[in-house]
Amino acid sequence: MKIEDIAIVLVEPLYEINIGYVARTMKNFCLEKLILVNPQCEVGDTAYRYAMHGRDVLEKARRIDSLEEVFDAFDLVVSTSGKSPLSSGYHRRSLTPEDFVNVLSGVEGKAAILFGREDIGLTNEIIKETDFLVHIPANIEYSTLNLSHAVAIIAYVIFRELKHNGRAVSIASKRERELLLDCISSIFEKSSVPLHKADKAKLVLRRILSRAGVSKEELYSLLTVFRKVSTFIEKI
Amino acid sequence: MKIEDIAIVLVEPLYEINIGYVARTMKNFCLEKLILVNPQCEVGDTAYRYAMHGRDVLEKARRIDSLEEVFDAFDLVVSTSGKSPLSSGYHRRSLTPEDFVNVLSGVEGKAAILFGREDIGLTNEIIKETDFLVHIPANIEYSTLNLSHAVAIIAYVIFRELKHNGRAVSIASKRERELLLDCISSIFEKSSVPLHKADKAKLVLRRILSRAGVSKEELYSLLTVFRKVSTFIEKI
Repeated sequence: MKIEDIAIVLVEPLYEINIGYVARTMKNFCLEKLILVNPQCEVGDTAYRYAMHGRDVLEKARRIDSLEEVFDAFDLVVSTSGKSPLSSGYHRRSLTPEDFVNVLSGVEGKAAILFGREDIGLTNEIIKETDFLVHIPANIEYSTLNLSHAVAIIAYVIFRELKHNGRAVSIASKRERELLLDCISSIFEKSSVPLHKADKAKLVLRRILSRAGVSKEELYSLLTVFRKVSTFIEKI
Repeated sequence: MKIEDIAIVLVEPLYEINIGYVARTMKNFCLEKLILVNPQCEVGDTAYRYAMHGRDVLEKARRIDSLEEVFDAFDLVVSTSGKSPLSSGYHRRSLTPEDFVNVLSGVEGKAAILFGREDIGLTNEIIKETDFLVHIPANIEYSTLNLSHAVAIIAYVIFRELKHNGRAVSIASKRERELLLDCISSIFEKSSVPLHKADKAKLVLRRILSRAGVSKEELYSLLTVFRKVSTFIEKI
């Protein structure tokens, strides 16, 4: 599924601030389709102020009166709940956001993710109608997230899986890392460091460089400097 | 590292609503230690209203005037930024929340995660002082999250990793890592490496050591050897 095919649906939201924040966080994570089902508040200046650069998400948001339309138009309709799945019956058997996104990434079509109103969440009747329930694992003593924070976390997990492709930094190759290690080794040798200590240190450095995922830029900034040290010692 | 050893530090926050929301989301994910550095707003009724059941996090929050205290008290100090690492220089080489939490889960000690003020974020000066930078991957056209949403996502990722499992190696403290960095710096100096190159290399090394989660054993094996190099050069 593509991220463009996913809609966030707020069912009877109560507070403008939350609607604004939801639009902002959706924009942050490339989700563009917002549906407001029978909002219980104005969607005016306050919402736009909190939406910041998510203003266009709010402008394009669709308002509808009933969830029926959502069940008709989407291939997958998913509910969310802050209540622990342990606290309730079988229909609350739930997925984590990560498991949910795994499902999404393997299917095609359009998905709607429902978030209930701030005070009561989604009703059991709505949850039963949906394909499955997503629960964000949290403190069992206080698992109820603010509406916009719940949307932010789910949007982030979706973005990471469906949109964000790997690291943008260019990582130093093994050959480049060995260049640096050889240079440092030669410094040890010229400084009369006992061989077994030098070998161990080289091994430690090799592991550190690979664990840290050293970038090319970082590597060459180190290589330049250690080469100067090596040349300095050589001249002695 | 245990979740109890992690503090959230808000540097000069501007808005009460955000402080309240941060306390709430921290409570949702079992983070209890909040530090407010020179808040630019009241922390009163509005903050408490938005904190909901995170009220106790807010009540116990420490207020301090300067970040110095944080750098002194924590083994690992981490900065966060909404700016894409591509948009700036080498010192912004950043970790994703997941990579960051991988580092945390392998180390012992206390960590502080810094979040800058809502309008300008953390300054480059502060970022340079920290062990590394965490960036939440997001829409490259609009990657600036609301403060409380950024905290929510990082708190969620921490909770998912640390609250259920944990592996512990004995990790070098910040003080120990600085010992090694100082020793290597002195080698650069004695070898007449130009100061700006030496400073950059030291910064790169600092970030590599923290990203790699260097153990005490690894650190001392390096320290022994670099001390010998330093002594050798000194004798010349």
